[in-house]
Amino acid sequence: MNNKLHSVSEWMKENDIQFSFITSSENVFYLSGFFSDPHERLLGLAVFQDAEPFLVCPAMEKEDAKQAGWKHEIIGYSDIENPWEKVHQAVKKRAAHISRAAIEKEHMNVERYEAITQLFSGAQFVSAEDKLRKLRMVKDEQELEIIREACALADYAIEVGCSEIAEGKTELDVLAAIEFALKKKGVNEMSFSTMVLTGANGASPHGTPGMTQMKKGDLVLFDLGVVWKGYCSDITRTVAFGDINDKQKEIYDTVLKAQLAAVEASRPGMTAADLDLTARNIIREAGYGEYFPHRLGHGLGISVHEYPSLTETNPLQLEKGMVFTIEPGIYVPGVAGVRIEDDLAVTENGVEVLTKFPKELQII
Amino acid sequence: MNNKLHSVSEWMKENDIQFSFITSSENVFYLSGFFSDPHERLLGLAVFQDAEPFLVCPAMEKEDAKQAGWKHEIIGYSDIENPWEKVHQAVKKRAAHISRAAIEKEHMNVERYEAITQLFSGAQFVSAEDKLRKLRMVKDEQELEIIREACALADYAIEVGCSEIAEGKTELDVLAAIEFALKKKGVNEMSFSTMVLTGANGASPHGTPGMTQMKKGDLVLFDLGVVWKGYCSDITRTVAFGDINDKQKEIYDTVLKAQLAAVEASRPGMTAADLDLTARNIIREAGYGEYFPHRLGHGLGISVHEYPSLTETNPLQLEKGMVFTIEPGIYVPGVAGVRIEDDLAVTENGVEVLTKFPKELQII
Repeated sequence: MNNKLHSVSEWMKENDIQFSFITSSENVFYLSGFFSDPHERLLGLAVFQDAEPFLVCPAMEKEDAKQAGWKHEIIGYSDIENPWEKVHQAVKKRAAHISRAAIEKEHMNVERYEAITQLFSGAQFVSAEDKLRKLRMVKDEQELEIIREACALADYAIEVGCSEIAEGKTELDVLAAIEFALKKKGVNEMSFSTMVLTGANGASPHGTPGMTQMKKGDLVLFDLGVVWKGYCSDITRTVAFGDINDKQKEIYDTVLKAQLAAVEASRPGMTAADLDLTARNIIREAGYGEYFPHRLGHGLGISVHEYPSLTETNPLQLEKGMVFTIEPGIYVPGVAGVRIEDDLAVTENGVEVLTKFPKELQII
Repeated sequence: MNNKLHSVSEWMKENDIQFSFITSSENVFYLSGFFSDPHERLLGLAVFQDAEPFLVCPAMEKEDAKQAGWKHEIIGYSDIENPWEKVHQAVKKRAAHISRAAIEKEHMNVERYEAITQLFSGAQFVSAEDKLRKLRMVKDEQELEIIREACALADYAIEVGCSEIAEGKTELDVLAAIEFALKKKGVNEMSFSTMVLTGANGASPHGTPGMTQMKKGDLVLFDLGVVWKGYCSDITRTVAFGDINDKQKEIYDTVLKAQLAAVEASRPGMTAADLDLTARNIIREAGYGEYFPHRLGHGLGISVHEYPSLTETNPLQLEKGMVFTIEPGIYVPGVAGVRIEDDLAVTENGVEVLTKFPKELQII
């Protein structure tokens, strides 16, 4: 069993859980190395306290699961077989009595819940999600290596975006050019809908790119990330198209100062709340507190938003291996929107900044 | 109340259901006209037998729901409020006693199910999904008009793809050019991952586009669709790059004959099974039966795969307003893969073919 599965088994012993059945694509991938999106078909990973885990998937995917490195039993089923009956038999061989079982209550649907509670009637069903979120929060070296690659691709995307800015081009023109360049590098999926926002549009933290044309004097905001070998990156840069005015510059400098201070303060033992406040207080003192309406950042990994959440009230202490964004922003309607976002990994004594595109104001 | 909501209320009366709570983005959009993907936040549409329906959504989306044309009550909630308590109060005002309630059992997760069953304890929960699938299967004129536009964009995408084919270009090069051109037309989302497969890769019905280069003598298969105003299109064309051999031509002609026969046979009263067999028998008689491993087609609309399913065992009769694909294929490993797919809408006496890119073999 790999370390991740071992941690789940240990948690099950501590909590007197005899059987965990993990069914979300993300968590199955995390624990098994096998990624599959079987749509309405059942994909599941069964974990026990001591017995061997098994995977259940459509028969045609068995070979893929082996290729992905899964060494334990794989139970395949055809479209005319009932996978739940096979799961039931395989579980009975491994655990004589199930009084407590764990599932993902935010993922599993009612139809499946009715099936599994009927098969294991009398068992109490608890949620495995919080445990899995905490496990996924701390990355191992293999995960970090992939995230570094995903971040390098995000840097490249910003580079492409900057080179495409020109008078009269629309946000969608530039967006299309960025994704075109990434596809040629083998990137098939973005972490979320790419944002390219120019001028007034950048002043909304959740704007949608459209047909607005770029013009000199605009700030252009890019927010994007790629999915690479199952892991996400997420970067934001705001650049100037030609000369910008003093107010825009002041806002940029304030965000940059806040971002750099938070990066500098990141280290094991620092709390998420203190980190958020490190950046937030700089923005507040500059008089822009009300224009920074979101948290400082979020964890990322297999999901683009995962633990830890960097809010001003989260007492969680940073530890080595956590990967998260630091992304302060100031959005003054009608004036300017600026956000600067890096991905970071906590190290022994500080952080490694994974996204490397320059943060000093770039004038295009 | 619009016709769609009215149909749900009628169904509830027939089945003695006092309260339906619809929470999937697709079905909320279908019934209310408001599309939202609120991630982990609650979005819900409450329907009653006679009382006025209401929508519950994050407070910041209330305005969007009104803009989308929702005329009834909207209950907004902030991140620090419990939306379930608000739902409970609003339902109590509309229905004195809930003995049966309907939810989407394939959509709702266990966490929410525990919340709603606790609020309405004693009520039996049944699934609204089958009813909604049947309602969504038959499109009204407004929906058809949007699907026509989505199909015209799919035709355009094939046109772009054909113009990009050239010696040495990779599948991903051509794919990137197609999506680039679509983005410039305002298409922000594809119905599914675009497929461009050349040569041997086309012989897998579920291939993944990669770095394979195009070369003369290849068949190139495009399978793609766009999401437009909430509705999907889905088209497949297979074209020849330069001269192809007799075997490839024979396979192409067989698929085309099968496809045209099925289109010709489509009309109200025809069963899904007979339609599938119309095409399948032509392919079987040509000796390629074992190389056509999938159903003839599927419904499409808000989802790219919905009812009806055109399989050789489905007794469902076609009726006016149904929209589906007809997409026979023959995949002979090492020789050729050909699929030709149109989207069709059933009319009073036949069908309207919504995708219009030519189907006679195009030689590039």
